[in-house]
Amino acid sequence: MRKLSDYVPILDWGRRYNRGAFSNDLIAAVIVTIMLIPQSLAYALLAGLPPEAGIYASIVPIILYAIFGTSRALAVGPVAVVSLLTASAVGQVAEQGTAGYAIAALTLAFLSGGFLLLLGVLRLGFLANFLSHPVIAGFITASGILIATSQLSHILGVPAGGHTLIEMGATLLSHLGQVDPITLIIGGAATAFLFWVRKGLKPLLRALGLGARAAGVLTKAGPVAAVVVTTVATWAFGLADQGVAIVGAVPQSLPPLTLPGMSPDLIRQLAVPAILISVIGFVESVSVAQTLAAKKRQRIDPNQELIGLGTANLGAAFTGGYPVTGGFARSVVNFDAGAETPAAGAFTAVGLAIAALALTPLVYFLPKATLAATIIVAVLSLVDFSILKKTWVYSKSDFAAVTATILLTLGAGVEVGVASGVVLSIALHLYKTSRPHVAEVGLVPNTQHFRNILRHEVKTDPGVLTLRVDESLYFVNARFLEDLVQDRIAEGCEIRHVILMFSAVNEVDYSALESLEAINHRLTDLGVGLHLSEVKGPVMDRLGKAHFLDALNGEVFLSQYDAWTSLKSDEAVE
Amino acid sequence: MRKLSDYVPILDWGRRYNRGAFSNDLIAAVIVTIMLIPQSLAYALLAGLPPEAGIYASIVPIILYAIFGTSRALAVGPVAVVSLLTASAVGQVAEQGTAGYAIAALTLAFLSGGFLLLLGVLRLGFLANFLSHPVIAGFITASGILIATSQLSHILGVPAGGHTLIEMGATLLSHLGQVDPITLIIGGAATAFLFWVRKGLKPLLRALGLGARAAGVLTKAGPVAAVVVTTVATWAFGLADQGVAIVGAVPQSLPPLTLPGMSPDLIRQLAVPAILISVIGFVESVSVAQTLAAKKRQRIDPNQELIGLGTANLGAAFTGGYPVTGGFARSVVNFDAGAETPAAGAFTAVGLAIAALALTPLVYFLPKATLAATIIVAVLSLVDFSILKKTWVYSKSDFAAVTATILLTLGAGVEVGVASGVVLSIALHLYKTSRPHVAEVGLVPNTQHFRNILRHEVKTDPGVLTLRVDESLYFVNARFLEDLVQDRIAEGCEIRHVILMFSAVNEVDYSALESLEAINHRLTDLGVGLHLSEVKGPVMDRLGKAHFLDALNGEVFLSQYDAWTSLKSDEAVE
Repeated sequence: MRKLSDYVPILDWGRRYNRGAFSNDLIAAVIVTIMLIPQSLAYALLAGLPPEAGIYASIVPIILYAIFGTSRALAVGPVAVVSLLTASAVGQVAEQGTAGYAIAALTLAFLSGGFLLLLGVLRLGFLANFLSHPVIAGFITASGILIATSQLSHILGVPAGGHTLIEMGATLLSHLGQVDPITLIIGGAATAFLFWVRKGLKPLLRALGLGARAAGVLTKAGPVAAVVVTTVATWAFGLADQGVAIVGAVPQSLPPLTLPGMSPDLIRQLAVPAILISVIGFVESVSVAQTLAAKKRQRIDPNQELIGLGTANLGAAFTGGYPVTGGFARSVVNFDAGAETPAAGAFTAVGLAIAALALTPLVYFLPKATLAATIIVAVLSLVDFSILKKTWVYSKSDFAAVTATILLTLGAGVEVGVASGVVLSIALHLYKTSRPHVAEVGLVPNTQHFRNILRHEVKTDPGVLTLRVDESLYFVNARFLEDLVQDRIAEGCEIRHVILMFSAVNEVDYSALESLEAINHRLTDLGVGLHLSEVKGPVMDRLGKAHFLDALNGEVFLSQYDAWTSLKSDEAVE
Repeated sequence: MRKLSDYVPILDWGRRYNRGAFSNDLIAAVIVTIMLIPQSLAYALLAGLPPEAGIYASIVPIILYAIFGTSRALAVGPVAVVSLLTASAVGQVAEQGTAGYAIAALTLAFLSGGFLLLLGVLRLGFLANFLSHPVIAGFITASGILIATSQLSHILGVPAGGHTLIEMGATLLSHLGQVDPITLIIGGAATAFLFWVRKGLKPLLRALGLGARAAGVLTKAGPVAAVVVTTVATWAFGLADQGVAIVGAVPQSLPPLTLPGMSPDLIRQLAVPAILISVIGFVESVSVAQTLAAKKRQRIDPNQELIGLGTANLGAAFTGGYPVTGGFARSVVNFDAGAETPAAGAFTAVGLAIAALALTPLVYFLPKATLAATIIVAVLSLVDFSILKKTWVYSKSDFAAVTATILLTLGAGVEVGVASGVVLSIALHLYKTSRPHVAEVGLVPNTQHFRNILRHEVKTDPGVLTLRVDESLYFVNARFLEDLVQDRIAEGCEIRHVILMFSAVNEVDYSALESLEAINHRLTDLGVGLHLSEVKGPVMDRLGKAHFLDALNGEVFLSQYDAWTSLKSDEAVE
């Protein structure tokens, strides 16, 4: 039976919390807080929301996840892909900058939280498995490109627009004449600096004698340096008056109590995007959590993760945020900085609350171009086309799924892209199983083992046809087997017995049962025996229930070898 | 290589056509024509179209199918389920009785014909397999109930309405006060007579000394008798003036040349219904054609059937008809009456053309209640709830699919019903494969055969864990295996070797490959060997390409017995 602490994991780890864990968690929280301040502002910008929404979305959600989540190191808050999905979904129902836009973002978080919670309570976490690895990889790569492109407008100081690569590119090109040179200098310099921090700073610090961990953590503070330098420069030289877009006034306040919009019309329009955001956010979060848990031989519970992320999103909906999930970058930093328990997340929340109350005036002169630079550098690390080559070599149908996902995400938007990837992977799987591999098998000499006559030197008997069906039998391929047996019988007139070797048949559904009955009926008419061998227990139970075994004109053999020895004639040849 | 006569089967059978076949075909055509006249009028009524549309839809389509189709006995024309689907689809874009309604029906036939032709040219006939037998059975049963209910209004002489059982029932109840007594007498008597013809006439004729075939054919003429008697009575007693709805004036004409509506808006609205009608019509038609072909050991080609039905529907679109398919009742009558080639269909078309030119004035006084009675009696024979009991015993997931199909077809309409059935059967299949059966196996004494340790008395070794994975490994269950192996290893600390027995693994997709790599990685860390056995050829080829076999810390064995003998320790126990 499940205990209360399975549903509220804090009851488990909270009891054993001690001073050592406390100090480790506190140090990790300070490091993560410093990194999260610019990141939260940047992702809010990406989502089309005012900057404070990003900070608010990092406070209450992180505390709720600390109570209900199972990962020790996961940091929950705004992430790049979910921010992009939010912009795409909310942009379809409201204009950026309006009150309706912010309210729709709250509604999206509310619906997404409710959906995740529902899945968690119904223990449907396995549904996330419907996103195949190649589809996820393709989607993340294409999203990274889309996000980076969307931020170019902030670097160039021109208006942005569009949800596909083509629309975004067209908008950028049409405004190329209006590029603001000072914005471009700030944005370009910040981007170059951040790329250098990512590639060159850590080796430099190591060369200067710093430890690997300290060098890694300092590297993560690069965005803060960029923020400080460009903010000071903008203030000192009065660049805001010369056309550089700045963050401007951010309210000094703890997260406000907010109510998501609940009109049936809004809910209907946002329901599908909310489901999509939930699933993608959940998959991203669980992948990160599993990777980190495996390193410490801990386990996470995907169904409880749904509850943790669900409550976190509900929290975001009522405290001025927008959809959140477990982020890759922040979680890795948290883990590397030594976080031991979810309390580190709670301390981070406190840090961000202090920032929201006290530090927001300091970002007044922060150029949006700097935030765009931090986003570009972060997301371009997600772009990885190697999945195309790997799947091309391994499996053309996986390649087709990943290619379709990338092209449709870039060309038709994130929602169409990922939905097509999922539908296509399922359709390709069904197509493959609709024409199963069926091998005619014979006996490998001096063994009791049977293999494909086309691939191995085996003994066969012209009077006995053994077909090993390499697929479960169900409605999609039921008729295929019917036709196949009929064709094989029409070819070989010496055949007296047909053995269907069921070692790879894991299921026989009702449609396939009807096909087996039809095969049995036709073979009986022709005076040919139909036999089964190596039928698995669960399949055997079911065929028995349907009285198929009584109707079968031949026998069921435990092993193919038994079937062979009892049916072969003396002329069996090698 | 495919020959021209594969695409135009008439070139094959037409060459060998002789006098014997001609006279058999002619007799069959006369019998079918007599049966089709009332049936065509009735199905047009069901589709909400003027009566002549039913006759026109039986003329050119039947000729085109005779040229391009592969079944010798299939009779193509309006059928009950497709007529109902037409009424439901066209009713959403136009008002019954308007010119727009008839034009939309032509468009539906055009789109359906184009779609079928496209599928045929692309050789995608296997797509029809996505409708499982239980879903089809449930859908046909529920459609039969819906159709019979929809015709009650004609029997009662009250206005009809609604596309679901609840809506239809509510409309009927709200008009119960306006029931027309004379219409009810005609309709009730015709229904009772036709039921008696179906159940009681054939035994009576046999008792009177008629042969079985003649008795069967005469029975099929029952509707003609009902039509003649009620028409004469209506005319003689002037019942039309007393409120009995009659067919009225039907133009005396060959099928007119018509153009389907081609506005983008209409096409967009009808595209999805057209696909649904195509698929359902195709499945019904192919089932009938296969059943009849099997009786004479003939074969039909599903892809060529798509072409035959596609051209038939295009023909209907341009000659005043509406969507058609191969009908069960008319095909069986055609077959029983001795039709030998598709020429019988062409002769039927001639018979109906003569009827359209010469006989239409005779049906002026035909009561609509009589047509409704013929429909009710015909479709109630389709209603068969035994599929519920059969699937309940055999497989709960098939039962769930058939129950959902029936309830949703009745409660939410035919389109929602069949779509839900298909989606649910696919989802249930994926769900089952997402948690595959995995058996720990041991050696059956005195054999080389391995079976589940829970079901059989077998030899095992505490140091060797053999898991037989009873499912192909793909994205939906990739993580499941990863978790399972990890859990099993955590339980048994003596385990030195894990053998994954791949006899039932028919595919390993890219997601599953990554999971196998992760399993291999973890077991290597723990000092446990990972081995594979009985890997099928196609799977082995692919794993080799991905270099997984180089990375594997253990070996790949041809048979599980080889793996066992080389890995077991001396303490192997029974």
